[in-house]
Amino acid sequence: MKAARFYGERDIRIDEDADPGDVGPTDVRIDVDVCGICGTDLHEYERAALTPDSEHPQTGASRPIVIGHEFSGRVSEVGDDVMRLAVGDPVTVHPNIPCHDCVYCADGRYNRCDDSLAIGLETGTGGFAESAVVPARQVHVLPESVDLWEGALVEPLAVGLHAVRRSGMCAGDTVAVFGCGPIGLTALRAAEAGGAKRIFASEPNEHRREVARRLGADVAIDPLEEDAVERIADATDDGVDAAFEFAGVEPSVDAAIRSTRRGGAVTVGSLSDGAVALDLDEIVLNERELRGTFCYGFPPRSFRTEFDAIVRSIADGEIDTDAFATKRISLENIVEEGFEELTAPDTAHVKILVEP
Amino acid sequence: MKAARFYGERDIRIDEDADPGDVGPTDVRIDVDVCGICGTDLHEYERAALTPDSEHPQTGASRPIVIGHEFSGRVSEVGDDVMRLAVGDPVTVHPNIPCHDCVYCADGRYNRCDDSLAIGLETGTGGFAESAVVPARQVHVLPESVDLWEGALVEPLAVGLHAVRRSGMCAGDTVAVFGCGPIGLTALRAAEAGGAKRIFASEPNEHRREVARRLGADVAIDPLEEDAVERIADATDDGVDAAFEFAGVEPSVDAAIRSTRRGGAVTVGSLSDGAVALDLDEIVLNERELRGTFCYGFPPRSFRTEFDAIVRSIADGEIDTDAFATKRISLENIVEEGFEELTAPDTAHVKILVEP
Repeated sequence: MKAARFYGERDIRIDEDADPGDVGPTDVRIDVDVCGICGTDLHEYERAALTPDSEHPQTGASRPIVIGHEFSGRVSEVGDDVMRLAVGDPVTVHPNIPCHDCVYCADGRYNRCDDSLAIGLETGTGGFAESAVVPARQVHVLPESVDLWEGALVEPLAVGLHAVRRSGMCAGDTVAVFGCGPIGLTALRAAEAGGAKRIFASEPNEHRREVARRLGADVAIDPLEEDAVERIADATDDGVDAAFEFAGVEPSVDAAIRSTRRGGAVTVGSLSDGAVALDLDEIVLNERELRGTFCYGFPPRSFRTEFDAIVRSIADGEIDTDAFATKRISLENIVEEGFEELTAPDTAHVKILVEP
Repeated sequence: MKAARFYGERDIRIDEDADPGDVGPTDVRIDVDVCGICGTDLHEYERAALTPDSEHPQTGASRPIVIGHEFSGRVSEVGDDVMRLAVGDPVTVHPNIPCHDCVYCADGRYNRCDDSLAIGLETGTGGFAESAVVPARQVHVLPESVDLWEGALVEPLAVGLHAVRRSGMCAGDTVAVFGCGPIGLTALRAAEAGGAKRIFASEPNEHRREVARRLGADVAIDPLEEDAVERIADATDDGVDAAFEFAGVEPSVDAAIRSTRRGGAVTVGSLSDGAVALDLDEIVLNERELRGTFCYGFPPRSFRTEFDAIVRSIADGEIDTDAFATKRISLENIVEEGFEELTAPDTAHVKILVEP
């Protein structure tokens, strides 16, 4: 089977002999239609931090490892014990496999699982491949009214929706989004859907500012040209009610905090690799709140998952999916036209979908 | 009138000719019974950051300035327009005067006021004096069942109660308090009153650890001898539900964050003077929350203020006020027996009350 495998820093190769493994009794095989390149993939490409360089204690996988976790496709093989899925079903995947054993899983808080495994990073199977074998309960069936390629956007859109749900943002609130990469944009879109009255977007890349406007930003600020905090303070009653931070760099986190009014909420979804120096007094004296957001709720088979909400919104035509998926490329070109393109600071793209 | 006046860093003098000013139509004069020394007073003693060194634009006051804001006493003179108060009333004071004009005051969020004035720091009148003149609506009447000296503890106890209310802590939660100075201890006491199931206290001063135990801490940790995060993790399901931080130093803030379980809430009430380097990923990946808490709600004449709740608890004998007020001194000895005593790292005291 053809697949993109990660060998180490800046080393991804297209191998013809990748093996997704056998379909166990509770697994399914998915013939991949498209798989999106995620910020986590780019991080891994540049830093090699998450894929196991020796045998993974639970999965046995190690580099070179098949990557890609935002994918959709059709079921092509079903394990003996799987009743819910059939060959031909259009599906997308919850890439994090919870342990189902820790105190967080026991509480249904699967995204806080102590010991989850990431498909496309730690399991040896992934979406930048002709097919992937995954546990059936990680699979989310798509209605036929959702295009198969749109299924690959469900995961990142769910991350943005979860961030907005975590934030406590209410209809009528003013909102600022710092960092309009793919996830910042999905959060912006969810804030707009949740009734944000006025949305400020701060993003140095002009192409992405344009997408932010297209998705509902009223004001798009280039933080390299203009002080976003001042601009927002001038245009509001002492700042926004809710800020979202998806850039993961100190000046952006600082600006997100200071852009909120007293009592405002800052929701951070970016990883920042190391210590960030914050003026904590800005939080204390102004009674601000800063909270982390990670992935999304994904109780298997629950009808209240954020995946469900996103899938229904796509099916109803409420999400401008074309704004997110700005390019499609073949698996062969994944490095030059995908990873290299997206790690360039002036990239004209949001999400690039890879077609195996 | 005799009063302690602040002249500058480490320079407080007892002056005989201090003048609290005239009683205007909406003011009252209070003959001070006792006034507690607050952490903010100690901060000011060491850094001279809040008292005006030239004429204050609103109050006209400047150093040397009468300090002290946690005080109680009896009304001795009443302005012509004041209907609610009478000479002889036992009272305590809300020391922050909101502007009643900003968006926060308009919302009833007086502790977030843009432009509040602090009695005992900015107004020229304060509690380390024989008498103080304050706006009548800053005054909170005490029932006769509350000892007058206990009235001086209402303010710091309200700060602790507000912190617990801000935190979202629920009955049955496990709690950790980092820093058991006076405010950490009032928060600990409020957490205990709010149904905290198990309370960990982290404090290097052994006298204060002892008071923490007396007020309800199940485990008192010396962070210089033991890793509080490890101790707490070992004794809980992956950490406490809610942590409180009142030390204002980087290792304590870091430990407070890491002591909470995933999804846990950290409430910070300390000021930290400058940037604090935090591993923000600890907040993001674990979906923790960090929120600031400042003072307390103080809508004038509202029956829902935190002052009311504290006064009623003291009146009902629910608060071990002796645990907080560990010493009484005369005004003449305020520096040696008060400020110097409390800024010593091994002080045996929590709150020292000054009797003018």
